[in-house]
Amino acid sequence: MPSHSDPLPPRPPPSDAPPELRLAAEIAGITVDRVGPAALAVAAQCVLDGLGVAIAATDEPGVRIVREVALAETPSGSATLLGHGARTGARAAALVNGTAAHALDYDDVLAAMGGHPTVPVLPAALALAEELGVGGRELLVAVVAGIETEARVGAALGTAHYARGFHNTATAGTLGAAAAAASLLRLPTERVRTALSIAATSASGLKANFGTMTKPLHAGQAAAAGLLAARLAGAGFTASDTGLTERRGMLPVLSDAPEPDALAVPFGQPWHVASVLFKFHAACYLTHATIDAALALRVGGLDPRAIESVDLIVPPGHLGVCAIPQPRTGLEGKFSLRFTTALALYSGATDESRFTDAAARDPELVALRDTVRVHTSGDIGHYAGRVTVRTRDGRTLQAEGDVSTPRWQHSPDEQAPALQRKFDGLVSPVLGPDATARLRRLLADLPGLGSVAELTRATVPDGGRTFP
Amino acid sequence: MPSHSDPLPPRPPPSDAPPELRLAAEIAGITVDRVGPAALAVAAQCVLDGLGVAIAATDEPGVRIVREVALAETPSGSATLLGHGARTGARAAALVNGTAAHALDYDDVLAAMGGHPTVPVLPAALALAEELGVGGRELLVAVVAGIETEARVGAALGTAHYARGFHNTATAGTLGAAAAAASLLRLPTERVRTALSIAATSASGLKANFGTMTKPLHAGQAAAAGLLAARLAGAGFTASDTGLTERRGMLPVLSDAPEPDALAVPFGQPWHVASVLFKFHAACYLTHATIDAALALRVGGLDPRAIESVDLIVPPGHLGVCAIPQPRTGLEGKFSLRFTTALALYSGATDESRFTDAAARDPELVALRDTVRVHTSGDIGHYAGRVTVRTRDGRTLQAEGDVSTPRWQHSPDEQAPALQRKFDGLVSPVLGPDATARLRRLLADLPGLGSVAELTRATVPDGGRTFP
Repeated sequence: MPSHSDPLPPRPPPSDAPPELRLAAEIAGITVDRVGPAALAVAAQCVLDGLGVAIAATDEPGVRIVREVALAETPSGSATLLGHGARTGARAAALVNGTAAHALDYDDVLAAMGGHPTVPVLPAALALAEELGVGGRELLVAVVAGIETEARVGAALGTAHYARGFHNTATAGTLGAAAAAASLLRLPTERVRTALSIAATSASGLKANFGTMTKPLHAGQAAAAGLLAARLAGAGFTASDTGLTERRGMLPVLSDAPEPDALAVPFGQPWHVASVLFKFHAACYLTHATIDAALALRVGGLDPRAIESVDLIVPPGHLGVCAIPQPRTGLEGKFSLRFTTALALYSGATDESRFTDAAARDPELVALRDTVRVHTSGDIGHYAGRVTVRTRDGRTLQAEGDVSTPRWQHSPDEQAPALQRKFDGLVSPVLGPDATARLRRLLADLPGLGSVAELTRATVPDGGRTFP
Repeated sequence: MPSHSDPLPPRPPPSDAPPELRLAAEIAGITVDRVGPAALAVAAQCVLDGLGVAIAATDEPGVRIVREVALAETPSGSATLLGHGARTGARAAALVNGTAAHALDYDDVLAAMGGHPTVPVLPAALALAEELGVGGRELLVAVVAGIETEARVGAALGTAHYARGFHNTATAGTLGAAAAAASLLRLPTERVRTALSIAATSASGLKANFGTMTKPLHAGQAAAAGLLAARLAGAGFTASDTGLTERRGMLPVLSDAPEPDALAVPFGQPWHVASVLFKFHAACYLTHATIDAALALRVGGLDPRAIESVDLIVPPGHLGVCAIPQPRTGLEGKFSLRFTTALALYSGATDESRFTDAAARDPELVALRDTVRVHTSGDIGHYAGRVTVRTRDGRTLQAEGDVSTPRWQHSPDEQAPALQRKFDGLVSPVLGPDATARLRRLLADLPGLGSVAELTRATVPDGGRTFP
């Protein structure tokens, strides 16, 4: 079995080498020892959380459509469809599983990437790892290689890329998926460079499709395209040596203010994977700070029937993303600061099961929502929010939330159990409690897992699914 | 069998409808009767020529790699790999056949699109037509729908798109492939609109990769992505209604000076397919005008041994595309105005077999090439060129070439036989003369062809290929 812990990494390219080459050398040289236990532990949480959100979305209409189209063309193969059980080709599985993992918009976030890191990377890595017959260590190293690449490509594209209209999860995600696949294929530096260049020319995805089934499709397409890029490069395909940085390459073509040097930052200074932000509420990440603040007030003893009015202060940019004033559906509720705050104050719970169309119409909840006023301030952090509640008896209560740093940094013992509770809530309805517990046990020791295929098979309900 | 000649097309959307909707209505409403015999005849030539260049590339290294990767994942299916015979899924076949069709860079050109129209469209249409069991009429209508769409999307992206670094064959080609597939699937207008929107968000391809195997891969990826977009839309997938024109949509994101109204120009005013320019020399299209001029001088009696010097006048932009001064290989020779002119003067022939590495090193040819001087002028047309030869005995001979209009417009009886000669020269080495003649007979009456599968099977050498 190949090992990722060779003691002598290849000599790195000189510091004046093209940034693509330096990034490729980092990907080719990554080992489980270099990554270290702290970053590996977060990578394992990315796997846990990514599997949970994908399995929970098995029955989503968009996921069913992509699955049917993929299986019609490739009805058998080496890779398992998560939560479903059909097997198909690795690229087809990456397409379907990537779409599923982003379908609920409940997956993790990475600020440096400007997008969702796990959903393009994990589906490509899982499908290829299953095909290659490798184990949990190789999977984790590939996930780290993918996420570190996404962080660098996202930073190199800069904020101008997202501002222009591109969806970083799709674009930087394609290179992350290529890096993860290249790691599993153990490609040497020059071949990794070619894989990144093919991925760069395959990167697409427009924000116009936010709010439609095509947004999660972007993650699936990124996963599949990155996997193809790595396979072609591994087989000797040719592409530009400078396909990211040259004038007609990815960075200047897809961004009006690229920062190519960001590509070449060595891995592990620090590990970006340790900064992955997980969602603990089933809504847009930009609603999370005010949800946390509202929950803090409720835990402090606030009775929702005593509320007269609620005032929120959020950064100005949030208004264009998650400020639907009167959401009509559960999905719209996820993008409504008023609804999410009211839901947190009213019920104290914000898991996936709460964002129903019935909840969006619930008279008491709607009445509370209608007391919420949204204000903006340039003085508040990008991932922060303030909630001020006035009660009918004249009291004023205030709390702030800040979700800019991972939970493990400020509450070291909370992140793992919170992720496990989230996982159980998402997976139990699909697999039942016993199979969910079995799967979680496998996930608890990923470095010791001998076969990724054992993991993907454990996502399938007993007897497989009856729907297509 | 479905028919494309329903007498009553659906009512077109109003003229203030979004451009995407109007383009979708044109695609949904296209019929064989509306297209008419003149445009259909050129579409049939696109099929003939596209098959020829694809079959001839069956053994190219890049094509072999893509084929092996595709067949490893999808080793069986409904669609035939041209010139090879293995069958795979329709999307996989579109990927491989699209890569093959562009591998020699000998395929057709469309000025309005700013790219190569047939290579993304035909592979998607062939694969899906074979799967659906339809015939030549449906194939031709799909090809027309695809090429008309490419012309409009290319025009709407504007020259700023190519100037920014995008490869129109890849980007506009993805929408062309989606339109062709949507036509074969007989999608209604609203579903075609969704297919175009999914294709728009899937469109990528960077000029950085010109000169590598990844350039032809772009055509294959466009074919496969367009086919996926149409399938997903047909199955009820959702995407932005304004995925091309809105601020975060394809046109403003991928172009600095888009012209969205170009999307909505009704079909047939005139048919762009009739303006497709075929390559009759196996070199960059921008070398063709000077090749034609050189050939005219040779036909006029010029002895190449009598030449003292050659002066070319071309538009300034050509220097960045096809002005390699001392090409070392046959491939580089295709992008060398000096070499191609010398070859035409020296041998009188410019088919694929002439662009060998040995020819690039041939002492007499190199000596003649070294007498060629390239000058530029802003007064000469984009697809024009002038050749002035001085002979050792003091004469001056001059000729001009212009390849801006299809050959049928100025030499009505020449285009079809010239394309047939080109086809025979490309296909005979792969299929042998008898099978080549059989295939050409099938292509001679495409509207009467009952089954596209009969056509694709006829591209396979007797007994199949022994290479992978």
